[in-house]
Amino acid sequence: MEERILCEELKAKIMSAEDAALLLKDGMTVAVSGFTLSSYPKAVPVALAKRVENGEKIKLSLYSGASTGDELDGIWADNGILNRRLPYQTNRKVRAATNRGELNFSDIHLGVFPQNLMYGFYKKPDIAIVEAVGITNEGNIIPANSVGIIPQAVTLADQVIIEINAENSMDYYGLHDVAMLPNPPHRGVIPILNVRDRIGKPYVDCPKEKIAAIVFTDQPDGHRKAIPITETYAKMADHLLDFFDFEVKKGRLPENLLPLQSGVGTVSNAVLEGMRKSDFENLEFFTEVIQESVLNLIDDGKVAYASGTSVSPTPDGMIRFQKDVNRYKDYIVLRPQEISNHVELVRRLGVIAINTPLEIDIYGNVNSTHQFGSGIMNGIGGSGDFAHNGYYSIFATPSTAKDGAISSVVPMVSHVDHTEHDTTVFVTEYGYADLRGLSPKERAEVIIEKCAHPDYKEMLRDYVRRAAQSSKLQTPHLLKEALSWHQRFLDTGSMLPDE
Amino acid sequence: MEERILCEELKAKIMSAEDAALLLKDGMTVAVSGFTLSSYPKAVPVALAKRVENGEKIKLSLYSGASTGDELDGIWADNGILNRRLPYQTNRKVRAATNRGELNFSDIHLGVFPQNLMYGFYKKPDIAIVEAVGITNEGNIIPANSVGIIPQAVTLADQVIIEINAENSMDYYGLHDVAMLPNPPHRGVIPILNVRDRIGKPYVDCPKEKIAAIVFTDQPDGHRKAIPITETYAKMADHLLDFFDFEVKKGRLPENLLPLQSGVGTVSNAVLEGMRKSDFENLEFFTEVIQESVLNLIDDGKVAYASGTSVSPTPDGMIRFQKDVNRYKDYIVLRPQEISNHVELVRRLGVIAINTPLEIDIYGNVNSTHQFGSGIMNGIGGSGDFAHNGYYSIFATPSTAKDGAISSVVPMVSHVDHTEHDTTVFVTEYGYADLRGLSPKERAEVIIEKCAHPDYKEMLRDYVRRAAQSSKLQTPHLLKEALSWHQRFLDTGSMLPDE
Repeated sequence: MEERILCEELKAKIMSAEDAALLLKDGMTVAVSGFTLSSYPKAVPVALAKRVENGEKIKLSLYSGASTGDELDGIWADNGILNRRLPYQTNRKVRAATNRGELNFSDIHLGVFPQNLMYGFYKKPDIAIVEAVGITNEGNIIPANSVGIIPQAVTLADQVIIEINAENSMDYYGLHDVAMLPNPPHRGVIPILNVRDRIGKPYVDCPKEKIAAIVFTDQPDGHRKAIPITETYAKMADHLLDFFDFEVKKGRLPENLLPLQSGVGTVSNAVLEGMRKSDFENLEFFTEVIQESVLNLIDDGKVAYASGTSVSPTPDGMIRFQKDVNRYKDYIVLRPQEISNHVELVRRLGVIAINTPLEIDIYGNVNSTHQFGSGIMNGIGGSGDFAHNGYYSIFATPSTAKDGAISSVVPMVSHVDHTEHDTTVFVTEYGYADLRGLSPKERAEVIIEKCAHPDYKEMLRDYVRRAAQSSKLQTPHLLKEALSWHQRFLDTGSMLPDE
Repeated sequence: MEERILCEELKAKIMSAEDAALLLKDGMTVAVSGFTLSSYPKAVPVALAKRVENGEKIKLSLYSGASTGDELDGIWADNGILNRRLPYQTNRKVRAATNRGELNFSDIHLGVFPQNLMYGFYKKPDIAIVEAVGITNEGNIIPANSVGIIPQAVTLADQVIIEINAENSMDYYGLHDVAMLPNPPHRGVIPILNVRDRIGKPYVDCPKEKIAAIVFTDQPDGHRKAIPITETYAKMADHLLDFFDFEVKKGRLPENLLPLQSGVGTVSNAVLEGMRKSDFENLEFFTEVIQESVLNLIDDGKVAYASGTSVSPTPDGMIRFQKDVNRYKDYIVLRPQEISNHVELVRRLGVIAINTPLEIDIYGNVNSTHQFGSGIMNGIGGSGDFAHNGYYSIFATPSTAKDGAISSVVPMVSHVDHTEHDTTVFVTEYGYADLRGLSPKERAEVIIEKCAHPDYKEMLRDYVRRAAQSSKLQTPHLLKEALSWHQRFLDTGSMLPDE
């Protein structure tokens, strides 16, 4: 593995994960690689957790690109190491600890977080821990399956620990396009005019002197298996494809659509799997996460190009990607998340944003983050970067959850992450609601009739009717009842009333 | 006035407002000039309303840049002419009619509305009515005190009616910089790197053949008088200037700050009047509306340059601007609102967004549009264009309204227009709360202690304490009580409980 370090003098920095972990001290802020469980550091975080298991007291603030796995977020939450966590997480142990009030989690747009770091809005990271495939002659870092915030982490941290993971080969060189943006008032144009345009270097600049430790590992990322695409999801995909067909016919979309962003999860996978069977070709992606379904579409010959900040398939899909990275490099570029999610580019390219909410309301608002108003789920992630600035802002969800005990369509969402001003189309297995140009009360009608589950339709209609009798009519609401469906679920285990 | 029409053949199109109004027919969609009561058409709308007063049945959809005055929005609402209204209004008659359910109002980001028009997302306008100072040799339109959506209106409409208003002189030529953006996938970079950069023409392109009528008027815009800046507002300005001082000291802002956006109203005027007494110089504005206070700062020699889509001072300030437009042209450019509010530019330039909410909540969410969840006030306007993408996103409001009967700081806002992810600083007369990097429960503490009115502080603390006992701790809420303060006001006329 030493041959992965092309810079001879840096070989002196090779050490065990345990020795590298000694650089981390109580009270520090640590910034790491990693995005949607792709290429987060594993060896050093586990070594650090062992020290705490053995009685040492260490509290840290953790910054990442996005979600990391059990070897970092999970084991640190378990051991009470996390003091503060920015800007996103999907780990059930972190979620539980956050909802118990044991740490401070700040939920920040993933495309905005890196620039705010550079502006000095948050405490400067002391140490960066970065997973890489190798180090160049000059000491620069070749990332692996994600770029995320590596450039900002390395720029701001005093010391850098590199984990070179044997899982990913040196063939990754050339997959990445790394650039950083100057802070205002010195910021210029981002000269990306097409999804495939490159503006940076194939590695992350890193001053040699900062590299304090190099550790070798061979632990695979903790990717999750795919959830099977049920009929519900397949129907949602069909409705969305119908919408695209309609828009192409109306001349509002080119034949090959516009660059697609699709959030992480089953809905996205279903939509993209649906596209495999469609007539759409030469598809482009300008997205955060390149999921397995994008690799499938590439293999089908249906993708012209895909830009993201992370490749995040299933464990099997990752093995396929790793083996064939040289072929996939012709179709994929990974960028820092500041660029992959940048509003300038999302708006310019006319990105079709497709995201999955926790719940939507009858007036067009979306909750992506909180269960019943209080408990954090994951975080807003990049959905706001895309949804607020995309050509369409589409939210797709099954119409119910918990076997029908929760309606995904409610009178008022219990937390708002995307406002009525930023949503254009809602999709469930029952159909799609096109909200463009509608007033809130018109939206209520189309959302209830096209998207709500039959068990909840009459309840929703009844809410609107009664609200219209006693409130102003721009957005009819009964403030005493608006959140009562959520309360009923908390009290009885179902949003449906007892009969 | 005929000399304002430099294109000879178009003089044949001169007619009375009454004759021009005959071009408008029941069921049409009309797109007009006008932004914050600046340079909306007046003669033709009034002539149309007269027809309806005389018994004719006419229902129209109305698109504008932003707010228009009583001679358009007001008189059309009064006569039941408005069927649909996009994307903004501030007229009390339109508001009342909307809240009675008599028309459909769709509340849309002002910077997004023009592009969505060009994408074909809304019904195409049939006729454009545009106030101008004159017409060029080729039939192109020289706007007056605002640009707004004129380029899109003229491009999409089949026929164009021009109102040449003697109020504004031909000296306005050169004040404007008009460009349109191609739709994706053909959109390029917007090459504005500095507030003063120009990329277009000093007029709006208009095919001669489209011009169906030219009407002469001399009615002034219906601008409002300034509201005096009370001690409450002066204190808010002081706190905000303290924040800027702090940020300059920390190296996060240059000495002359970054380009400022300030919403319309007393808060903005107070802040900018406060700047007149400060040491800040060479200020830049990248904003929607150039209010009187910006003209004052220009007169003080404190402004390097100001970019907007509208000049909207008091009636006296407008006379001053009109008289001296040649001098002000050295400091001001007016752009189409698609450009003045464009997220690409807001993000690139690092705009400091300062807006006024109706209410804020303890977790960082902002309501800018709805009273008690249901009644529309004005609309989101451009606040989202700037707040979601600015360097800072600042919201400043007095801590109470209605003589203390309403707390501007509530447990949960009754409508969300700017989410916790898009707000960085809250200001009231009691201080400022810096929300950067904080978890929701940390935000609650700083917002309550720094911003809430003393009469409501203990009530807010009590809410958080009790919520923390029974809900998840990311964002502690009592769903049964979250909106009860609003309900109490509706029931009793005060958010304060009876003692």
